[in-house]
Amino acid sequence: MEQIKVFSPASVANLSCGFDVLGLALDSKGDDIMVKKIKRKEIILIHTDNYNLPLTVNENVSGKAAQAILDDLNLDFGFEITTHKNIHPGSGIGSSSSSATGTVFAINQLLGNILSEQQQLHYSLIGEHVASGSFHADNVAPSLLGGIILIRGYNPLDYIKLPVPSELWVSVITPKIQIKTYDARRVLKQKVMLKNAIQQCGNLAGLVAGFYRSDYELISRSLVDVLIEPQRAVLIPKFTDLKKKSIAAGALGTGISGSGPSVFSLCKGEENAKKISEVFNSIYKKTGIEYELIVSKVNEKGVKIIQE
Amino acid sequence: MEQIKVFSPASVANLSCGFDVLGLALDSKGDDIMVKKIKRKEIILIHTDNYNLPLTVNENVSGKAAQAILDDLNLDFGFEITTHKNIHPGSGIGSSSSSATGTVFAINQLLGNILSEQQQLHYSLIGEHVASGSFHADNVAPSLLGGIILIRGYNPLDYIKLPVPSELWVSVITPKIQIKTYDARRVLKQKVMLKNAIQQCGNLAGLVAGFYRSDYELISRSLVDVLIEPQRAVLIPKFTDLKKKSIAAGALGTGISGSGPSVFSLCKGEENAKKISEVFNSIYKKTGIEYELIVSKVNEKGVKIIQE
Repeated sequence: MEQIKVFSPASVANLSCGFDVLGLALDSKGDDIMVKKIKRKEIILIHTDNYNLPLTVNENVSGKAAQAILDDLNLDFGFEITTHKNIHPGSGIGSSSSSATGTVFAINQLLGNILSEQQQLHYSLIGEHVASGSFHADNVAPSLLGGIILIRGYNPLDYIKLPVPSELWVSVITPKIQIKTYDARRVLKQKVMLKNAIQQCGNLAGLVAGFYRSDYELISRSLVDVLIEPQRAVLIPKFTDLKKKSIAAGALGTGISGSGPSVFSLCKGEENAKKISEVFNSIYKKTGIEYELIVSKVNEKGVKIIQE
Repeated sequence: MEQIKVFSPASVANLSCGFDVLGLALDSKGDDIMVKKIKRKEIILIHTDNYNLPLTVNENVSGKAAQAILDDLNLDFGFEITTHKNIHPGSGIGSSSSSATGTVFAINQLLGNILSEQQQLHYSLIGEHVASGSFHADNVAPSLLGGIILIRGYNPLDYIKLPVPSELWVSVITPKIQIKTYDARRVLKQKVMLKNAIQQCGNLAGLVAGFYRSDYELISRSLVDVLIEPQRAVLIPKFTDLKKKSIAAGALGTGISGSGPSVFSLCKGEENAKKISEVFNSIYKKTGIEYELIVSKVNEKGVKIIQE
């Protein structure tokens, strides 16, 4: 195989109470990435989108990930990576992770699938680090593997695929303002109240149990973030309205996707997810801020091959 | 029915990463409680053990719980409660919860089972509060209901019964020194590092997933407490030894039971639980401190009727 084209899904990290440990992949949004073997030992980057992302290898998530593979495996050829981003960078739905995992997955296919899942995650994280400045796997892992992923811990990376309740849908609004992950991390206080940490623990455990039981009521009761959301909500215009009105309209819960500015609701069923999307729309159309709406099932497969 | 005798199990709360939100019931240890209807509208307390617990109704966990039921239901009779405690008070394996839940369960049986599970928990918590000074359900709920119980939150009390992996055993050592729950709570700092709270969240989510998957390796990796154990371990003689040597001997994980001084290990299989018990024994027999060893399956039924 000399070239391959893949679709790499967007993802919603954190899921309210699961800050830094939970993420899920979206079905209906992602980047298209074409990787071609080339003779010269180098990485060539092409973007067919209009995001003006850096094309220097070490400053580009795909470039950095690909270069790491090239170096570690001491390959005697290189790759041309053509990316068409459909995910706005900095939108909080795993834009950089999508590009990194898609690239790593595609290269691994071209190499005859010689990298383990763990190794693919490793290289994806190296890429993702370029954009976020940190090694967090809560976008990378769902984007690569699909489904709802729990990152139990790092050193070594320990991830668990959780069951996806069959009627679980996601509604997302992506305001076209940029919040950099790095900045969103800086606003967080380093210390939290023990009682809030315990409440967060209870909710996260309830959410995990809710996924296993397909218990939508329990999922709903558990989708509460007492640690991070109160600190970050101010960064997102109309967050309180989005949350209040979506929940009033039947969303299981609503929170900040990743480090924002995207806001997500988990919903029971497509119909409710569409209704929530209308709620988001009705609030944002008055703001003058550009935005995008996504209604999606949870993507259970992760990166997929579009064309070989 | 005029009288009933029940067995009310001991319990291990917290389970390392599950501080204040997880607890499990033990099979082989508990209090025996006999409740008899009497004509006068009062609560009479008898203890056939030697623990010299207060016999004033409002100062006794069983008395307080029983009185609350008597008052709320405006009954025109009373109860004589004869307790034989087999659980050392203040030992950290839910001694007060066991007496409270056994009493409430027995009274409910005598009343023709008119109280819901929630109501029984409510009255048990009223009793338990006498001893602990707080309303925590992580001993009361497993003692009443059996199994491994997640307390997602309070207001209202939200509890979920988690699956019990079939080979899960518990080994406990109960040093005969007293640590009052009240004091053990006082040593805790009110603030914790956010990064530690996140690590705790990841471990707790991993533990819950481990119970659902019957994944003993995952349970083992998740049984880590970075928030509370570092603060409380000093209260328990030889804690570091107990932990290190039990894990070296194959325990899935070892931690403080409740607020101590009991120390528990979760184990895969009876044989390993017995081996861990020997490890505990070999460490404590040199200390001069009296202690008791318990090897038990998880009790899946909760309070049970011994005699009607």
